[in-house]
Amino acid sequence: MMKLAVIYDSRTGNTKQAAEWIAEGMNSVEGADALTFSIADVDEEFVREAAGVVIGSPSYCALMTPQMRTWLFDKAMHMGLAGKLGGAFATEQYTHGGGEMVIQSILTNEIVYGMLCYSGGVGCGKPYIHLGPVGVNGNMEAHNRLELYRDYFVIYGERFARKAQEIS
Amino acid sequence: MMKLAVIYDSRTGNTKQAAEWIAEGMNSVEGADALTFSIADVDEEFVREAAGVVIGSPSYCALMTPQMRTWLFDKAMHMGLAGKLGGAFATEQYTHGGGEMVIQSILTNEIVYGMLCYSGGVGCGKPYIHLGPVGVNGNMEAHNRLELYRDYFVIYGERFARKAQEIS
Amino acid sequence: MMKLAVIYDSRTGNTKQAAEWIAEGMNSVEGADALTFSIADVDEEFVREAAGVVIGSPSYCALMTPQMRTWLFDKAMHMGLAGKLGGAFATEQYTHGGGEMVIQSILTNEIVYGMLCYSGGVGCGKPYIHLGPVGVNGNMEAHNRLELYRDYFVIYGERFARKAQEIS
Amino acid sequence: MMKLAVIYDSRTGNTKQAAEWIAEGMNSVEGADALTFSIADVDEEFVREAAGVVIGSPSYCALMTPQMRTWLFDKAMHMGLAGKLGGAFATEQYTHGGGEMVIQSILTNEIVYGMLCYSGGVGCGKPYIHLGPVGVNGNMEAHNRLELYRDYFVIYGERFARKAQEIS
Repeated sequence: MMKLAVIYDSRTGNTKQAAEWIAEGMNSVEGADALTFSIADVDEEFVREAAGVVIGSPSYCALMTPQMRTWLFDKAMHMGLAGKLGGAFATEQYTHGGGEMVIQSILTNEIVYGMLCYSGGVGCGKPYIHLGPVGVNGNMEAHNRLELYRDYFVIYGERFARKAQEIS
Repeated sequence: MMKLAVIYDSRTGNTKQAAEWIAEGMNSVEGADALTFSIADVDEEFVREAAGVVIGSPSYCALMTPQMRTWLFDKAMHMGLAGKLGGAFATEQYTHGGGEMVIQSILTNEIVYGMLCYSGGVGCGKPYIHLGPVGVNGNMEAHNRLELYRDYFVIYGERFARKAQEIS
Repeated sequence: MMKLAVIYDSRTGNTKQAAEWIAEGMNSVEGADALTFSIADVDEEFVREAAGVVIGSPSYCALMTPQMRTWLFDKAMHMGLAGKLGGAFATEQYTHGGGEMVIQSILTNEIVYGMLCYSGGVGCGKPYIHLGPVGVNGNMEAHNRLELYRDYFVIYGERFARKAQEIS
Repeated sequence: MMKLAVIYDSRTGNTKQAAEWIAEGMNSVEGADALTFSIADVDEEFVREAAGVVIGSPSYCALMTPQMRTWLFDKAMHMGLAGKLGGAFATEQYTHGGGEMVIQSILTNEIVYGMLCYSGGVGCGKPYIHLGPVGVNGNMEAHNRLELYRDYFVIYGERFARKAQEIS
């Protein structure tokens, strides 16, 4: 089985939910064994053996959370991520709320750690997923509820798992 | 009257519409005279006299359009933007489609041109507008139509105009 | 006197040194009273009264330090920064080491907090300072020593102070 | 032989020179056949057959050149880049001149095109190369000459070629 890890920071449960949808998509690929972990409780052994790691954070003022930033530097840097497939996702409270920039920052960090970053992009056809999926929760925008973004997270997970399998 | 310019690149009309909403918000502020311009037809004299300039582009693969990039370098650099208040906005076809990164790139360019960049941010209360407003059109996501984002563009325009007045 | 604050995170002393050069440039402008503060010891009263605040961090793997990220969210957000002039600077160990991206992230956060971000840019003539000054220390690149960048920090501080004065 | 393409936009010859150093590093890896191309004269057939593509631009006001932006959208999008290893590099006239942000933008575009982005990062040991190599030419900073950065470009090319070989 090919191990895949989806690691998140979550306060309200939105980013945890998004992580679970990604893992669901990953696990739909035969041979994939995807698990989700809160940064507070990562199974480091599993991560070390994983072919790919996807990391997600809510946007706090257009940046990743302080907890995620701290975890990336204090913990993730020492988990042997170099050479693994890397991905990122985010949640936000407004469509303009910074989720994409959070993803870009996480991917930047992953590339610095020696990972191969991949989202599928337009290369996989519609729905196009640019740098990674972003979900908007319903607190601020009445027309946006996290569930509306479910499919993007699931599809992203599936595409990511297929690529991880291909290059392993 | 304090002149304000909203300059956009638009193919399908979405970004033009967003620009007009921003100008509407600006013109709700007493003493403001806001006009919108396509990059193909900018009134350079008006821009030179403006206290503030807001620039917007659709996201094309998470970057501003080639036309906007070319205009920024060939034209905008020579329009005396230094010292003016600067802002940015974007449209995109998916919530994760790159609008925020387009805004960040435009603001980066504006700061390099010597502008003072401002969005209102959380300093103006709810709705929080982070780097600038982003609208998602309805082509790709059934639950997103540009009209749903109208208020953010109008409110952003109003906040921008008030700040321009304050520092002029 | 117009108060200006230069706030930094520093481990080895490089970013502290850069902060002091910026303050030196600021204090060369008549009427300016610039002080530097480590994030561990910020005079919040002074910051609240300041016309402008410049924030700097070393690049750790192309992101700001975890300590700076935490400080921005836990402390800076509650210091009444909205409406103040904002700037940013960075240090790094390689020319490609992420200093510019650190500055871009800090400026992004400042704009979200309602600040007006300004660097002088090409609008002030040579030396052009893009988003803010970056210094490379000598640990990794023999030809780069922080002192080589001294003038950029001083000039940046002076330009920033002049603009703060102009819009106060 | 594994084909690798290094594609650049260059006016003064600096970015062309950097591209040639990267190709030199690539060609030091057995089995690699690396060629450089100006965006004005790309051998599309070669690119389609390549296992990896590295793209570079000078920083113009902290953004890629308009010509590179246009080429990425009009040409590169239709060259079947999805699934290939992707990299980026830049040149600039000041250490703070925007090279890193140019690299980040190019990598963002490559990920949207479905590429796997890789730099080696800290995973390859010293010298650490973060998102990609940046060279500063000597026009503006007397202590910086492009030659000082030669090794980084060569080492980056070698690391990139090894990874391309590994995942092909």
